Amino acid sequence: MRHRSYLLLAHYPVVDRVGATITSAMTALDLHDLSRLARTYGLGGFFAQTNLPQQSALMQRLLRHWIGGAGGELNPSRKVALEGLSMVESIDEAAGKVEAEWGEKPLLIATSARDDGERMGFGEVGKLLAETTRPAIIIFGTASGLAPAALESCDVVVEPIGTPSDYNHLSVRSAASITVDRLFG
Amino acid sequence: MRHRSYLLLAHYPVVDRVGATITSAMTALDLHDLSRLARTYGLGGFFAQTNLPQQSALMQRLLRHWIGGAGGELNPSRKVALEGLSMVESIDEAAGKVEAEWGEKPLLIATSARDDGERMGFGEVGKLLAETTRPAIIIFGTASGLAPAALESCDVVVEPIGTPSDYNHLSVRSAASITVDRLFG
Repeated sequence: MRHRSYLLLAHYPVVDRVGATITSAMTALDLHDLSRLARTYGLGGFFAQTNLPQQSALMQRLLRHWIGGAGGELNPSRKVALEGLSMVESIDEAAGKVEAEWGEKPLLIATSARDDGERMGFGEVGKLLAETTRPAIIIFGTASGLAPAALESCDVVVEPIGTPSDYNHLSVRSAASITVDRLFG
Repeated sequence: MRHRSYLLLAHYPVVDRVGATITSAMTALDLHDLSRLARTYGLGGFFAQTNLPQQSALMQRLLRHWIGGAGGELNPSRKVALEGLSMVESIDEAAGKVEAEWGEKPLLIATSARDDGERMGFGEVGKLLAETTRPAIIIFGTASGLAPAALESCDVVVEPIGTPSDYNHLSVRSAASITVDRLFG
């Protein structure tokens, strides 16, 4: 059976280091890493989100090498992973696609390195996902994270990845990998 | 107290997709991600290993921007992370540095996505690390992983990251993040 949980990497609206709302640049390597992560954990798929059509078009052009081109022939496992990737303009668009597939609105589960609002523990979120019949989208923000309004519009915000140090500056690639392993590993 | 465990990202000897021993190209983003990971989990440091001095020199030049240059001023947390990075020519050189600091030879703990030899579970490795007085180096291979001879010369090889799917092609950035979280999180 197809997995009901999806990943989404958000590039807008996110905040920069001083808290201004921006669109961050898409990074091809992020799309590879999160596609491979979603596929390895058997998830429903992975959405790469940006509000800038030119960014989306550039990425689709780069990824064509891996899906229909020489990269995919040389490295079939990369092709398989990237086939689970969809480009979307908004979190709403991704939610609509998931709802169309499952007949129910997905739970929107945001992640954040900041601990300044209502947060749910990893154990609780894992339990929620195991028990609900609804599909879900786990959302990761690039740059300095999802903009506050976008974060608050999600159903759940997961607690930050707790670590033994006072330093918490993981890359989004690391944070997504650890989050997925904690929730689905 | 300083943590006794270190990370090492190996670029030689590793194998390519057909099993030939190669030196893989260093990727600046890997060095950022693993430096941030080591620092976030409060580890002793991170070694980036290659046998090619020109690769090492190129990386040191790129990283200077973040440690002594404009990047470090703009993003002090990145500077802090990268200050824990050392370039080494071999696993032996890294082991020598750790031994010089701790007065004991480090345990060499390799990771592998392949399950074709003696492997130790994550729980057991975590217990070993918590109980031993020896320092340790957790070794991650780039490309298709550490060459067999290098793998066999380590004290312990950790089991592959088990996943619910038959697909197991995580990036080294994802695999290192999940491994560190399972061992030290």
